[in-house]
Amino acid sequence: MIYSISRKLLILTSFMFISACGADDVSDQQWRALDLNNTVLLTLPHGSVVIELAPQFSPKHVERFSALVKKSFYDDTKFYRVIDGFVAQAGPKDGTDKDKSVPLLAIEGQFSTDKNWSFTQVQTKDLFASKTGFKAGFALASDNNTSAWLTHCPGTLAMARSNEADSASSHFYFVIGQAPRYLDKIMTIFGRVVYGMEHIQAIKRTSVVEGEYAVDSREHTPIISMKLMIDVPKNERIIIEVENTESTGFTERLVKRRARENEFFYKKPPPVLDVCQVPIRSRFIRNNKI
Amino acid sequence: MIYSISRKLLILTSFMFISACGADDVSDQQWRALDLNNTVLLTLPHGSVVIELAPQFSPKHVERFSALVKKSFYDDTKFYRVIDGFVAQAGPKDGTDKDKSVPLLAIEGQFSTDKNWSFTQVQTKDLFASKTGFKAGFALASDNNTSAWLTHCPGTLAMARSNEADSASSHFYFVIGQAPRYLDKIMTIFGRVVYGMEHIQAIKRTSVVEGEYAVDSREHTPIISMKLMIDVPKNERIIIEVENTESTGFTERLVKRRARENEFFYKKPPPVLDVCQVPIRSRFIRNNKI
Repeated sequence: MIYSISRKLLILTSFMFISACGADDVSDQQWRALDLNNTVLLTLPHGSVVIELAPQFSPKHVERFSALVKKSFYDDTKFYRVIDGFVAQAGPKDGTDKDKSVPLLAIEGQFSTDKNWSFTQVQTKDLFASKTGFKAGFALASDNNTSAWLTHCPGTLAMARSNEADSASSHFYFVIGQAPRYLDKIMTIFGRVVYGMEHIQAIKRTSVVEGEYAVDSREHTPIISMKLMIDVPKNERIIIEVENTESTGFTERLVKRRARENEFFYKKPPPVLDVCQVPIRSRFIRNNKI
Repeated sequence: MIYSISRKLLILTSFMFISACGADDVSDQQWRALDLNNTVLLTLPHGSVVIELAPQFSPKHVERFSALVKKSFYDDTKFYRVIDGFVAQAGPKDGTDKDKSVPLLAIEGQFSTDKNWSFTQVQTKDLFASKTGFKAGFALASDNNTSAWLTHCPGTLAMARSNEADSASSHFYFVIGQAPRYLDKIMTIFGRVVYGMEHIQAIKRTSVVEGEYAVDSREHTPIISMKLMIDVPKNERIIIEVENTESTGFTERLVKRRARENEFFYKKPPPVLDVCQVPIRSRFIRNNKI
């Protein structure tokens, strides 16, 4: 049955591969530990979610989000705008003192790169950019050699905003459907779900189709708590390691994935990869190993 | 906050638009009633899901699936292979008499087209095909003027198979993550979720990451029942209408969606559309209107 492949993909035959770019950064380390200062534990009524923040790409947004998390700002707030196939959005009640207490932020939708900048390239001639790839576990796109940006994929965490570019404050969203890549560059992505995405997918939808009754706000999924992992008592931490997207093993996996050599593919698909359809694996480190 | 857009998009200014292809089929009917003989009501422990079948594209698979549904074949079977971001797969227990009782099917992964064949075109130079579009509510792709195929998008229903092309029998899957377009043409897609996708997303995952304990099969989500809507007592039916993808209104919406004219887009994204990121709307018809 489909994708018994996944197990077979793990059995990689070793072979030489010269990366098109970023060869200097390639490492033998398949797994990377998360920095607990930049990892968030989100507790929902139905499960726990671990998020990796991206201070290297969106420093001001991570600083803001971390500061709010540290003061329990989001605890007891609700996912008030949840549209199946699109986003799950949370934040304080619009227009309340709590909401208005948070100053606005300048957008960090893309960043400048120079000729030395590189990533683990996935695809050229992507529908929305001239190339896509990964860096530090995050999916990115780049148009030329002058700028790059984090891309919206399922599990992406980004800050919501009003119509103005620099109008984000505290409201955030997770992508829960097909990548809304048209939001790339004009929103600030600052993290991604590395564990528990199924619980994000199970957040109660708040939107209805024409003809249905509205969802009562009392049914909206609450955030029980959100904490930086470093602030979680050691015996309650969820320790996750993620695939090192700068490793030779990862690059080899991209090559394999593109080639679809498994006999399940009795006819080969086009040798292309959608950057949002390449899983970046996580692994769970048992608490008793801490 | 993001996508207050959706409401504004509904207020379409009327304007003339000449469709690039399929202009002859364009209709003024914005909504289309489903054929209850080709609509399935899937009852899960946590909610109801409505599926539209596609006999016009995959007649043998729809015939098979409908026949199995009619004899309650899937009732009490489980979603035994559910991988977050990929698929939720169900069917009888592998190797049982029930499983082996169902004969194999020849694949219906693509079909021939002639120069008169048309669809509501969405995009050219898609990553996986030379063009994409919609027909009868389904997302399709086409490489030239000789063949077309249904594409894997979130909510797609397709038949699972073994390594051989013609090895599908009764096991099926729903796509629950970023479109696995590399499965296009080599799997038979034969339906799509038109209502209750959030309940498909909430099906219990059966795969775990490295380091986690396996999920006990007793936790797998069961199918309470699956029925053709025509066989559901009238007062228990869920009547859904779907957007008519051959309508002028839909074509206008595609144009609007591509242009992203709303002021939320302070900087315009590339004028492209991912066919799997265009929602085909459904509406709920109250039972008391039947």
